[in-house]
Amino acid sequence: MIFLFTDFGYAGPYVGQMKAVLAARAPGVSVIDLMHDAPKFRPEPSGHLLAALGGHVPAGSVVLAVVDPGVGSARRPLALHLDGVWLVGPDNGLFQPWLACAASIDVWEITWRPERLSSSFHGRDLFAPVAAMIASGQPVPGDPIAAPAARANSGLGVIYIDGFGNAMTAIQGRALATEAVLEVGSRRLSRADTFSAVPPGTAFWYVNSLGLVELAVNHGSAAAALDLGVGSPVAVV
Amino acid sequence: MIFLFTDFGYAGPYVGQMKAVLAARAPGVSVIDLMHDAPKFRPEPSGHLLAALGGHVPAGSVVLAVVDPGVGSARRPLALHLDGVWLVGPDNGLFQPWLACAASIDVWEITWRPERLSSSFHGRDLFAPVAAMIASGQPVPGDPIAAPAARANSGLGVIYIDGFGNAMTAIQGRALATEAVLEVGSRRLSRADTFSAVPPGTAFWYVNSLGLVELAVNHGSAAAALDLGVGSPVAVV
Amino acid sequence: MIFLFTDFGYAGPYVGQMKAVLAARAPGVSVIDLMHDAPKFRPEPSGHLLAALGGHVPAGSVVLAVVDPGVGSARRPLALHLDGVWLVGPDNGLFQPWLACAASIDVWEITWRPERLSSSFHGRDLFAPVAAMIASGQPVPGDPIAAPAARANSGLGVIYIDGFGNAMTAIQGRALATEAVLEVGSRRLSRADTFSAVPPGTAFWYVNSLGLVELAVNHGSAAAALDLGVGSPVAVV
Repeated sequence: MIFLFTDFGYAGPYVGQMKAVLAARAPGVSVIDLMHDAPKFRPEPSGHLLAALGGHVPAGSVVLAVVDPGVGSARRPLALHLDGVWLVGPDNGLFQPWLACAASIDVWEITWRPERLSSSFHGRDLFAPVAAMIASGQPVPGDPIAAPAARANSGLGVIYIDGFGNAMTAIQGRALATEAVLEVGSRRLSRADTFSAVPPGTAFWYVNSLGLVELAVNHGSAAAALDLGVGSPVAVV
Repeated sequence: MIFLFTDFGYAGPYVGQMKAVLAARAPGVSVIDLMHDAPKFRPEPSGHLLAALGGHVPAGSVVLAVVDPGVGSARRPLALHLDGVWLVGPDNGLFQPWLACAASIDVWEITWRPERLSSSFHGRDLFAPVAAMIASGQPVPGDPIAAPAARANSGLGVIYIDGFGNAMTAIQGRALATEAVLEVGSRRLSRADTFSAVPPGTAFWYVNSLGLVELAVNHGSAAAALDLGVGSPVAVV
Repeated sequence: MIFLFTDFGYAGPYVGQMKAVLAARAPGVSVIDLMHDAPKFRPEPSGHLLAALGGHVPAGSVVLAVVDPGVGSARRPLALHLDGVWLVGPDNGLFQPWLACAASIDVWEITWRPERLSSSFHGRDLFAPVAAMIASGQPVPGDPIAAPAARANSGLGVIYIDGFGNAMTAIQGRALATEAVLEVGSRRLSRADTFSAVPPGTAFWYVNSLGLVELAVNHGSAAAALDLGVGSPVAVV
């Protein structure tokens, strides 16, 4: 099956066109929307989300991951096989967080090109066809390469604000002691087990269902209360 | 096939994770988004919507219904078989409107638990696996129980505001006489057959495509014009 | 497979109900969301989008296209077979742009009616069942008719604003010379190959991934900068 992970948004004609390509080239293969509101144009925080979601994707699946601000530029198209899951997308740091923790790594530079390649929509023209080939059991249409070198990480700040205003961070929950205190701007947050363990309006951190440290406010929006956005720094005191 | 009914919203990584679980545990079973913007954290109005939509779900289907403000608390996980449709979700009143009108009722308390149960996402960890089991023809992993007792209904007010500003109510259209007048705040509304039967700007009620009484304004938003939200009271004069 | 093209929006209970009908009547047939935010209530710009997307839909597919402000009125329900793709929807101009450029045209008036036809949701009650019949290989339940007469086109202005504020027009990219200048309000725009070819804040036009002329601003929103909406006129100077 093929999972889609993009920053295209749910609206608009873009996701539908990728699905049309997948349906034509890999008929009968299930296509599942993993997420279409990854942080727009930002491969690094998107990559942390992708790595966290990766643990919930069945082995053997293909993840078509397109957060591609450099579409049309010289960045390489990649296919990766990480811990039994296939990934297809641009070489711009999007796969770095997953690569950093993968036990099994194989990487290819995609050399296949379509007859018609638009300058602005490689998700449809290049990455979707390759995802369909791999999902159909065809060999990766490219050359094996070394894994991309690790990139300097801009920090472990906020990577996603959800619809409730909760702020996910790139910090793994298992990396923090229960009594750890986080500093966000001028505020310090302690851990709570659940929302209802603190009074309404109180900000805290907890380990979310993806295993990531998340900042939250009981009966409120952490993003609004703490003035957070994707990229806001979070420090362990 | 499995239908999803949640208050998670369409954006974010939550629906995708449930679909990943369903794809892994019930491969080949169709998964259909029935609705993801049920009234957030509000099982009662959500339940009225669910009951109204139930008439449009094919017999034999499984509806995975998660509006679960009490996730992590002691509320029971349920499986129900109502009029030939399976339902899986929390025992918090969400199934009460359907139960109140069902001709055929069987209820189980789900006793199965996953190896890892997050405190905040039982939709993924508990309800989706059970929905997959039932959709795959396995027996319900739980114990038969009596149907949950009826709950005091907080009234038949507005249960959903759609994208046009139309306000659905929990009132069955067949329960109202054509000449009935509804009172909403200080306004009184009469019935019209269609939007175009009244002048632009006029508020009226009609029976919508789900069979429910809906408040509307021709060429306008009833929610804005009448200051309506989920829970706004509507009285039959 | 069946593609959905509507102005219902992604939220709400409407798309899910159409999918429930399709799943019941055409089990095993893939259903793909092509787009649900076509310009609301506006068949003409929606039709230009539909025609542009049509080139990306596999031959043999059925497109269930519902932008239907006249639902409940006397407009005819249509089935069309254009260049190998089936279309089902209302006769209100929505299919005109595709008809205008189709090489192969067959049109039917749908005469089939369901037992229960709501006055406000023919997408669910009439068009979805017919799409399911055609996708299942059944004959079109209607009578062959001549293609609807061409309608006066209100112009080649803006047909869609995407989530980035880019403004698609109905102008085919191949119809414009590279050096063409477009007039939008009091502004004149020249062509650029890509966003990065112009300084941030600069407005320009380019040929988008659907082959249509699109107005854009590097690192900005053309809709905001040029005060554009669906229907805004665009002139070739």
